[in-house]
Amino acid sequence: MRISKDRLEKYRNLRRIFSEEDYINIQPIQRGGVLTEEAMKAILEFGDGYSVCDLCPPKSARLDMITSPPIKDFYHDLAEFLGMDSARVVTRCREAVFIAFKMLGRAGDYVIIDSNAHYSTYLAAELAGLRIKEVPNSGYPEFKIDLEAYNEKIQEVKKEIGSSPAAIFLTHVDYLYGNLNDAKIVGRIAKDYGIPFILNCAYSAGVMPIDGKEMGADVITCSGHKSWAASAPTGIIAFNKSLEEKIVMRSKIEGDLTKRKFGVKELALLGCTVMGAPLITLMASFPEVVKRVERWDEEVSKARYLVFELEKIEGIKQLGIKPKMHTLIHLESESFYKVSLSHKRKGYFLYEELKERRIVGIQPGLTKHFKFNTYGLSWEQVKYVRDAFFNIAEKYGISHS
Amino acid sequence: MRISKDRLEKYRNLRRIFSEEDYINIQPIQRGGVLTEEAMKAILEFGDGYSVCDLCPPKSARLDMITSPPIKDFYHDLAEFLGMDSARVVTRCREAVFIAFKMLGRAGDYVIIDSNAHYSTYLAAELAGLRIKEVPNSGYPEFKIDLEAYNEKIQEVKKEIGSSPAAIFLTHVDYLYGNLNDAKIVGRIAKDYGIPFILNCAYSAGVMPIDGKEMGADVITCSGHKSWAASAPTGIIAFNKSLEEKIVMRSKIEGDLTKRKFGVKELALLGCTVMGAPLITLMASFPEVVKRVERWDEEVSKARYLVFELEKIEGIKQLGIKPKMHTLIHLESESFYKVSLSHKRKGYFLYEELKERRIVGIQPGLTKHFKFNTYGLSWEQVKYVRDAFFNIAEKYGISHS
Repeated sequence: MRISKDRLEKYRNLRRIFSEEDYINIQPIQRGGVLTEEAMKAILEFGDGYSVCDLCPPKSARLDMITSPPIKDFYHDLAEFLGMDSARVVTRCREAVFIAFKMLGRAGDYVIIDSNAHYSTYLAAELAGLRIKEVPNSGYPEFKIDLEAYNEKIQEVKKEIGSSPAAIFLTHVDYLYGNLNDAKIVGRIAKDYGIPFILNCAYSAGVMPIDGKEMGADVITCSGHKSWAASAPTGIIAFNKSLEEKIVMRSKIEGDLTKRKFGVKELALLGCTVMGAPLITLMASFPEVVKRVERWDEEVSKARYLVFELEKIEGIKQLGIKPKMHTLIHLESESFYKVSLSHKRKGYFLYEELKERRIVGIQPGLTKHFKFNTYGLSWEQVKYVRDAFFNIAEKYGISHS
Repeated sequence: MRISKDRLEKYRNLRRIFSEEDYINIQPIQRGGVLTEEAMKAILEFGDGYSVCDLCPPKSARLDMITSPPIKDFYHDLAEFLGMDSARVVTRCREAVFIAFKMLGRAGDYVIIDSNAHYSTYLAAELAGLRIKEVPNSGYPEFKIDLEAYNEKIQEVKKEIGSSPAAIFLTHVDYLYGNLNDAKIVGRIAKDYGIPFILNCAYSAGVMPIDGKEMGADVITCSGHKSWAASAPTGIIAFNKSLEEKIVMRSKIEGDLTKRKFGVKELALLGCTVMGAPLITLMASFPEVVKRVERWDEEVSKARYLVFELEKIEGIKQLGIKPKMHTLIHLESESFYKVSLSHKRKGYFLYEELKERRIVGIQPGLTKHFKFNTYGLSWEQVKYVRDAFFNIAEKYGISHS
């Protein structure tokens, strides 16, 4: 069908309203996905559709067999970097979780997940036909996952259906409070029961050091656009040798008439996966990612410092485990909330006051609870953010020490 | 784990060996995915991870609700452009096929597919737990799908399992011969039997005009990086109102402890889908795509012309339906094959001779059968390609008229 020229005008000159040059972006999920310079160069080079496939090897035509650009090596390096045996780049972290659930479980099986898991974990289980059992958290204000409770939950499943859960799943760092879980505890439990352990590192791998083996993870899932300085959509699924046959099981289907078969293709990946800009940015940023995880302690210091400073404002309180072990911060703010009740812009005032000060990323409308992320900000920017909050507090007569 | 600095060197300055400036790329699957200038500008603007989500609406937090950049409008315009009621951008055409199979079928159901379907169609059925029945083609040299045979295949399934197939599936233009099927015939059969009709337009939508309603399609699947001048990985699933509740069924899962629910999220998409460079290039190229499909006849003329010319070379014969109705061309070449038998570079000689002449995209090693695509080449480039083939033929003593 024809679309009128007028209606197409809006797609011309697509611009980002809040550019990284003009604004400090503290959006909770965006800090780890800002491209490196190398990635920006690479995206220009490999922006075209299938451009990474220029030299796809004819005989083993599969993305992970391409040596120029060095995709094959990259998959190996990725696995090693994560302390796992194998890795594949997939379209999203949530797809990685779906693949793990689908290939490790059968319809009706249980999977045990932490109660701070991202919504996409629940959806991945639902799409894979699995039932879930949640591991409780301690509730307000820490929302700490009770890691030892994985034991009880396994027992519960065994009692209920007479067999073990298909897998146990833990969100390494959750998106709600930025709580870092001690994955080793769950790794040990998984080992005790001989159940595969899936660790979702969407908020950890790519920004902090990860050693899957040490944590006892059987599968690790990652988000390229969240934490690896890559374009969306990209994810990583890394796994241990013992699960390779399941996770990347080859296709077995055969054409009833033609007898066509595709035994080289990996079923759950549907063959080749991420062929373009996201993959090439992930690769181009990799050297910097390898370096930056070593600076993680410094990143955590900045987060802790900002929490320490902002808690000087009356009525502001950090939620989640203290002190911060991650740069994703969830604040509760009774005082800003009180202001919002009588402000003509209601809850939007905080967003707008910050925007006026060239800070973006806090969800518009929120004042009582809001999240942000300090990852990759300079100390100067962190202090600027603090000063902006102090300044807004003062403007509305909220005291700070 | 640490990766040594030496090993990271290979990820620096990633360059495309065959740039569009220096080479004529006739790779069968790449022609429709070359970015427009608008797309190239947009990718620089929105390369960062989640950058299209800067203004995600807080209350209906979902990709297709974002109005800046105009994603919400884009989804509507996409649907209209394809002559369908609704559309979603997904990560790949094969994921769109998987979603359609998964959401329309139940494990063990049949889906009827054409025997020229891409391997990923078979894998999508396998992953969704469906069985397949293939519709035959006429074999050498036309490989024409027997569209009326969908009738018999439906009857076969009914006889075998007592119920209808979950869906019937046709590849509009296949990847093997570039044969264009008259989808209306299958659309009519689907309507007669009341079975959903999935039309895979990976090689048609985005380069030629598509009207899903007119063809009687219930679901249309597309590939952004193949035919919409977009970065990989992107696909589109478009569907009619009648299937909306199934295809984009909302999540129903509930946390057993927390009672968390995610009723706004679309299950098979796992929530938000393509958030970055591929989506923004798809949008930025859209005005040009809307225009370019009107020039399809001219593109087909170029393909026909080149086939006409190359068939003047002794032993060269176009496979698939004649005359060409699409720009993807499959040639059989007894003469080049004979050369390869005694050439020291074996079958690679043809690839190398072409590369020397700055033409790339024919699979290295192939001579007896090879594919290429003329889409978007200028007449001058088409003639240059012809002359190169003539020249190579002459070099090896193959006559041409």
